[in-house]
Amino acid sequence: MAGAAKRGGTRRAPYEIADPALAPRGLDRIAWAGGRMPVLAMIADRLDRERPLDGVSVAACLHVTAETANLAIALRRAGASVALCAANPLATQDEVAAALVTEHGIEVRARHGERFSDYEQHIEEVVESARGSSERWVTIDDGADLVLTAHLGGEQGCEGLIGGTEETTTGLLRLRRLEAKSGLRCPVLAVNEARIERALNDRHGTGQSALDGIIRATNVLLAGHTLVVLGYGWAGQGVAQRARGAGAAVIVCEVDPLRALEARMAGFEVMPVIEAARRGDVFVTVTGTPRVLRSEHFAVMQDGAILANAGHFDVEIDLDELRAAATGEPRRVRHLVDEYTLSDGRRLNLLAHGRVVNLAAAEGHPASVMDVSFALQALAIETLVTGRIPTVADGDPEAPGENAEITFAPGVQPVPRAIDREVARLKLAALGVAIDHPTPDQEEYRRSWD
Amino acid sequence: MAGAAKRGGTRRAPYEIADPALAPRGLDRIAWAGGRMPVLAMIADRLDRERPLDGVSVAACLHVTAETANLAIALRRAGASVALCAANPLATQDEVAAALVTEHGIEVRARHGERFSDYEQHIEEVVESARGSSERWVTIDDGADLVLTAHLGGEQGCEGLIGGTEETTTGLLRLRRLEAKSGLRCPVLAVNEARIERALNDRHGTGQSALDGIIRATNVLLAGHTLVVLGYGWAGQGVAQRARGAGAAVIVCEVDPLRALEARMAGFEVMPVIEAARRGDVFVTVTGTPRVLRSEHFAVMQDGAILANAGHFDVEIDLDELRAAATGEPRRVRHLVDEYTLSDGRRLNLLAHGRVVNLAAAEGHPASVMDVSFALQALAIETLVTGRIPTVADGDPEAPGENAEITFAPGVQPVPRAIDREVARLKLAALGVAIDHPTPDQEEYRRSWD
Amino acid sequence: MAGAAKRGGTRRAPYEIADPALAPRGLDRIAWAGGRMPVLAMIADRLDRERPLDGVSVAACLHVTAETANLAIALRRAGASVALCAANPLATQDEVAAALVTEHGIEVRARHGERFSDYEQHIEEVVESARGSSERWVTIDDGADLVLTAHLGGEQGCEGLIGGTEETTTGLLRLRRLEAKSGLRCPVLAVNEARIERALNDRHGTGQSALDGIIRATNVLLAGHTLVVLGYGWAGQGVAQRARGAGAAVIVCEVDPLRALEARMAGFEVMPVIEAARRGDVFVTVTGTPRVLRSEHFAVMQDGAILANAGHFDVEIDLDELRAAATGEPRRVRHLVDEYTLSDGRRLNLLAHGRVVNLAAAEGHPASVMDVSFALQALAIETLVTGRIPTVADGDPEAPGENAEITFAPGVQPVPRAIDREVARLKLAALGVAIDHPTPDQEEYRRSWD
Amino acid sequence: MAGAAKRGGTRRAPYEIADPALAPRGLDRIAWAGGRMPVLAMIADRLDRERPLDGVSVAACLHVTAETANLAIALRRAGASVALCAANPLATQDEVAAALVTEHGIEVRARHGERFSDYEQHIEEVVESARGSSERWVTIDDGADLVLTAHLGGEQGCEGLIGGTEETTTGLLRLRRLEAKSGLRCPVLAVNEARIERALNDRHGTGQSALDGIIRATNVLLAGHTLVVLGYGWAGQGVAQRARGAGAAVIVCEVDPLRALEARMAGFEVMPVIEAARRGDVFVTVTGTPRVLRSEHFAVMQDGAILANAGHFDVEIDLDELRAAATGEPRRVRHLVDEYTLSDGRRLNLLAHGRVVNLAAAEGHPASVMDVSFALQALAIETLVTGRIPTVADGDPEAPGENAEITFAPGVQPVPRAIDREVARLKLAALGVAIDHPTPDQEEYRRSWD
Repeated sequence: MAGAAKRGGTRRAPYEIADPALAPRGLDRIAWAGGRMPVLAMIADRLDRERPLDGVSVAACLHVTAETANLAIALRRAGASVALCAANPLATQDEVAAALVTEHGIEVRARHGERFSDYEQHIEEVVESARGSSERWVTIDDGADLVLTAHLGGEQGCEGLIGGTEETTTGLLRLRRLEAKSGLRCPVLAVNEARIERALNDRHGTGQSALDGIIRATNVLLAGHTLVVLGYGWAGQGVAQRARGAGAAVIVCEVDPLRALEARMAGFEVMPVIEAARRGDVFVTVTGTPRVLRSEHFAVMQDGAILANAGHFDVEIDLDELRAAATGEPRRVRHLVDEYTLSDGRRLNLLAHGRVVNLAAAEGHPASVMDVSFALQALAIETLVTGRIPTVADGDPEAPGENAEITFAPGVQPVPRAIDREVARLKLAALGVAIDHPTPDQEEYRRSWD
Repeated sequence: MAGAAKRGGTRRAPYEIADPALAPRGLDRIAWAGGRMPVLAMIADRLDRERPLDGVSVAACLHVTAETANLAIALRRAGASVALCAANPLATQDEVAAALVTEHGIEVRARHGERFSDYEQHIEEVVESARGSSERWVTIDDGADLVLTAHLGGEQGCEGLIGGTEETTTGLLRLRRLEAKSGLRCPVLAVNEARIERALNDRHGTGQSALDGIIRATNVLLAGHTLVVLGYGWAGQGVAQRARGAGAAVIVCEVDPLRALEARMAGFEVMPVIEAARRGDVFVTVTGTPRVLRSEHFAVMQDGAILANAGHFDVEIDLDELRAAATGEPRRVRHLVDEYTLSDGRRLNLLAHGRVVNLAAAEGHPASVMDVSFALQALAIETLVTGRIPTVADGDPEAPGENAEITFAPGVQPVPRAIDREVARLKLAALGVAIDHPTPDQEEYRRSWD
Repeated sequence: MAGAAKRGGTRRAPYEIADPALAPRGLDRIAWAGGRMPVLAMIADRLDRERPLDGVSVAACLHVTAETANLAIALRRAGASVALCAANPLATQDEVAAALVTEHGIEVRARHGERFSDYEQHIEEVVESARGSSERWVTIDDGADLVLTAHLGGEQGCEGLIGGTEETTTGLLRLRRLEAKSGLRCPVLAVNEARIERALNDRHGTGQSALDGIIRATNVLLAGHTLVVLGYGWAGQGVAQRARGAGAAVIVCEVDPLRALEARMAGFEVMPVIEAARRGDVFVTVTGTPRVLRSEHFAVMQDGAILANAGHFDVEIDLDELRAAATGEPRRVRHLVDEYTLSDGRRLNLLAHGRVVNLAAAEGHPASVMDVSFALQALAIETLVTGRIPTVADGDPEAPGENAEITFAPGVQPVPRAIDREVARLKLAALGVAIDHPTPDQEEYRRSWD
Repeated sequence: MAGAAKRGGTRRAPYEIADPALAPRGLDRIAWAGGRMPVLAMIADRLDRERPLDGVSVAACLHVTAETANLAIALRRAGASVALCAANPLATQDEVAAALVTEHGIEVRARHGERFSDYEQHIEEVVESARGSSERWVTIDDGADLVLTAHLGGEQGCEGLIGGTEETTTGLLRLRRLEAKSGLRCPVLAVNEARIERALNDRHGTGQSALDGIIRATNVLLAGHTLVVLGYGWAGQGVAQRARGAGAAVIVCEVDPLRALEARMAGFEVMPVIEAARRGDVFVTVTGTPRVLRSEHFAVMQDGAILANAGHFDVEIDLDELRAAATGEPRRVRHLVDEYTLSDGRRLNLLAHGRVVNLAAAEGHPASVMDVSFALQALAIETLVTGRIPTVADGDPEAPGENAEITFAPGVQPVPRAIDREVARLKLAALGVAIDHPTPDQEEYRRSWD
């Protein structure tokens, strides 16, 4: 259903959603999620007072969920007009879309399960809408679609575009390729490479939710069993720590010697995959690399082994080779568990078709993790627009000072560390944790060192 | 649907189940669960060869699930005729009941959601059936209903009754009261007090599944938050360890000074509930005691606190006082999460109506835990019937020797430690873990000490 | 130097010590240790008020250290006359002995490094003194020497002997052998089998101090290395936990299947010694069994492996076989590290000659652990003498009630659980930890269950 | 004693050491340490074959210990002439100095406890010697003394100086100040900022050895007690993890919000120092900042609190304010424990006079940690001299390729990541840990992403 919604008499927002009547339930979901996102709420309250985004349009291409809704509302409260489409049609919560349209004056163009052509058209419409409705606009991307769409239009397509943010590794890859080839016309802040994002999202978010997905899918007891973590980046560290915390004997496989050494120093067993394959009861891939589990490993695994992928793409377990190794069609033994029987009778259990297990078998990152991600997004957008980092003075000698001015060159840029720190400061406040500030003489001492 | 099923030409088993046609799906579930119960499978294979229960009837009152089915089938393979009714009508899996009746010749009298009067009648029918069909019979109880029903019939009611096993604390309470009042006419082995049962079921089973239930219900991130465990018995220890392993700051509340000291020595903060109430983000009761969280605690909790009970009964959180403290009806904010708003605006989130969270919000104990419980059951029943402990010699100087004879006096009796050891031995084998035996000179040395 | 000291005009205590002039330094050491023993101090203050041991003699055969001195003084303050000799001549701190004699009126018969004949004579003199100086006397043993000496004298030798306490497994063995052969004439409380003693002394005391000894001896970094714990009793659990906490990859070897399973469920690797021997960097024996590391294991260990014993006797590593496997004399490579070079060039490093490493290479149990042990001793002695358990009411339904009466039959007897609880209660107070008492309705509920 | 030693007929090395006759014991110590430094040994074997330092002089100002000796010998085997003086006269092991001079042809100018003027003169002599004896020379500094001395001589002073390495934060500070003021004439590689150095040295080395120092000094039991870590950098993380692993309840104080948040997410309690001061039993400062514990904190600490500093300088605990707060002189209650009694009777125990506790009360970093530091040093020096990174190809797409060429601009420079990786690779080999290499298609995939 397409149409226009009215709110506060301001302006009509066109939309393309499933059903505006779903709004009440959507409001409930948004409110519940909002209660779990206190950092974003604190920022939103300030934005509401300061309205730094007055006269600015935001184009956002994100999962249309209750958590995203809270970000969109925060930007709206900051004064922006907001147009939102889906980064993945299957993730769209129609009732949330309805609430955003009918109650918050946000232009949403997303329906759960929409066709690919509609999905693509919505991206274009959102870009056009943002570009057309204000002189200055910004993008929030989850895969670089908005920025790339704008760039396809050349100088004209990017007219008024202040810059954007990107949430995913894939999106950064696309942007950096474009940058290397023909340059970017605006800065794009790499939100997912921010330190706090890595620590909370990758380590703690994935650490908990990947195991959550495995347990929901199988109800396996981790204690007493051997869990093999393939990859010891931030996410792999999180999975390994949590698995040990759950009583599993944990083996780490990693090709980078520095990371492998850190895993070993942390008390994990470290070994090649072919050896680990013989010993594991549960396998979790989290490498960002294809085919880390493949036929040679399937050939030596124990009967009943469980295979889960916690990496972004479903390429880490070689599904073709798994199918080829099996004697027939896999058997669905539980919802999200497919049992592959090999020719010698051993059975391997693939979870969620090899798709990222914390999303496919659980609920993805907890709201308190999304809170940090979207707080980063909000501050990054604000900084892009205002040219000032909205941080308060807290005695950090390395901090740029309150509301320090900053400009970003075109291209993929890191999120300023001061924004990281500001989000951490707010998150601590949300957790009720107080910390000290250095005394003036300590600040002086530290400054004299650096 | 009532009727009779045939198998192997042996005998007709009467039944009272929902629908025999559900059997194929039931067989699948039984097979999947069986694959996760290797200890019981090893025992079942031996029982099948030795048939020590030939001519014996087993009356069992248990949750009619795929795991229970594997126990029933093991006893059937041992030679017993088996009659099964439900310990809780809501736990009955109708397709499993169907498979047991049609494919395994087991007399099942249980339907999902049956009326209480039917449920009670089925217990009586199962007792009658077991008593009537063989000269010697045994009981497997989950709440003492079978043994108590038999005792209601006096000497006649217990005719041929060799003894039984009991799985629950509540059942043992009822049995011990009866024992104190008028005596028991047979031995009942307290399976749930066996050491291995405590270690695996209470500590590891509850430890993982209680947190699993909380995460499924709320998707809360444990890392960074404060989790309060009320009660530091076996289950409380498990919850506390796992919560720490998940990154939570853990506070323990415990009234027993020895346990409180052990919690403190394990690095946990220990304090009175009223202090912990101010600091916790998540509360888990696991005390076996009523009203450990009550109005005085609700009065000081933080907005958004999550309340979960992992104890057997829903009495540990005082629900009446919670309702009285709230300003209106609770609001269902997620499936299994009820939000109570207090007069000052703080919101408390009650999970699963205060019912045991690992069953109500997750799947209860993993199959590998049930495997141990039911292996204990099988060996306990065998020992009761044969008067011999089916253990192999493994050099333990305290062990009673291979197939040691044993007799049990009437009354509630502990499971012989040799059975504990035997199950541990098989469980290690199932996990692929080999251990040493003492050398003869070491055995001699140890014997000389004791 | 032998003689007599005077204090408070009461009575002359004969003595046999190195040098009374060492007293000032002894007082310092006693005071420092006393500051670390708050539980004993609380008990001593009460004993000083109540003087329950008036007219009673205490014969004590213990390590004559600053910690023991605080126990002796506490008993003295309780009204007892105290005679003390050494359980091990090499552990005697002469300055402590001097302070006890000159300042506290305690009869000490111990000199550091005294000859064995003197050591034996001192035991006899202490027994005679205690028996002769009061009508009622008690013993505190660390190896059963006092009780056995008294029993050698038959009925007359045990005249007036109320009972005693025993601190060691070896002592209990000797007592139980005597009990089995000809009976004991008095009760002996098995202090080292008390639950709190096991938890604090064995698990936490040995856990920390065994690793402390290994690190002091070698300065090895545990993180990144593989530590093999042989034996998973209380002490082995402590060593395994602490080693994991220090970053080591930990392997457990254990012959008891229940314990082995518990180790595995705790996330440790479990395997036979011969396999662990190939993988370990550091080995710690803590089994109570001889020859758990022997030639077949030395044959496969890695070059540079470190061998430590944390068991009571130096029999767990087979020193004869180690010597036989080496090509020549061991080389002293560090104080307390002997390097044995095998015929193939591999070098094994034996710590502290295979003697208990936490005593031989570190300082044994921390004072806060001895505090609990000696608090148990003091309360056990008081209970033996008064026939009342000096506990306060704390709402435990299983507690015997305040100052409950109790009598002990002759023979080795467990320490009443109420004493365990009382020490735990005081220890929590010393740690500044408050806990709740059950409410009256909770007590009622719990009572109704048991 | 000064003189000249001869070795291999090459050249006479002048020296200034305590006593050449101490050499045999020095050789033993060097050999033992060498056995614990397998990474350096592997590098030394290669250097011996390749002799990349032929014709180069090395001036080294380091602690003259057995570990340093192995580095000096490795450089000698690489072809360099080596002149060594002390970075701290109290750390010099005279027997090691003797062995280096008499057996390894190394010019040592260091005596244990030498006067400050001698110490300074030795630095100058070592610079002169290195500059004078070859056309090209490099420095290894532990505090920047060599490089600064060379720069004092202007262009002439730095003639032939290829560059150097620096091991300490203090040294880097001095160098960066000089760089900012008047520039550096050569590159200096910041070894202590290398990732592997941070991970092993700071986290694992300090983590273990700081607690080791505290336990040696006090024999305190960590389990059950509260340990406060002030500072959550790499070293603070290590101390906090190890303290938790030892059973302590751990509180973290940190002024940086990002680090504070990471501490909280890791499950630690985080709070301001003034609150932690009330609760701690043991305090460990590791901030790099002065006066983190000062009078306001002493005023609220508990009786018996233990104060230890694990930071480089003895400024983190304000000793002046501690003395001022005490009523009289501190009392030496144990070796390295000074008890300060405050006016209200509370006693605070200062360890090792506030000096870095892991060096002052224990043995500093384990040899396996020094192994990594000195392996980095050796490879950094080699790279400076040869302009090639001595790494092997291992499939890392980010690696510079085997023996990649590299040039360093003047100034403080990071150690190339490829050297970090190479040391990690060798360390894994030394630990017996094998890892995989990416397959060619995986390499291709990863390359296509970056």
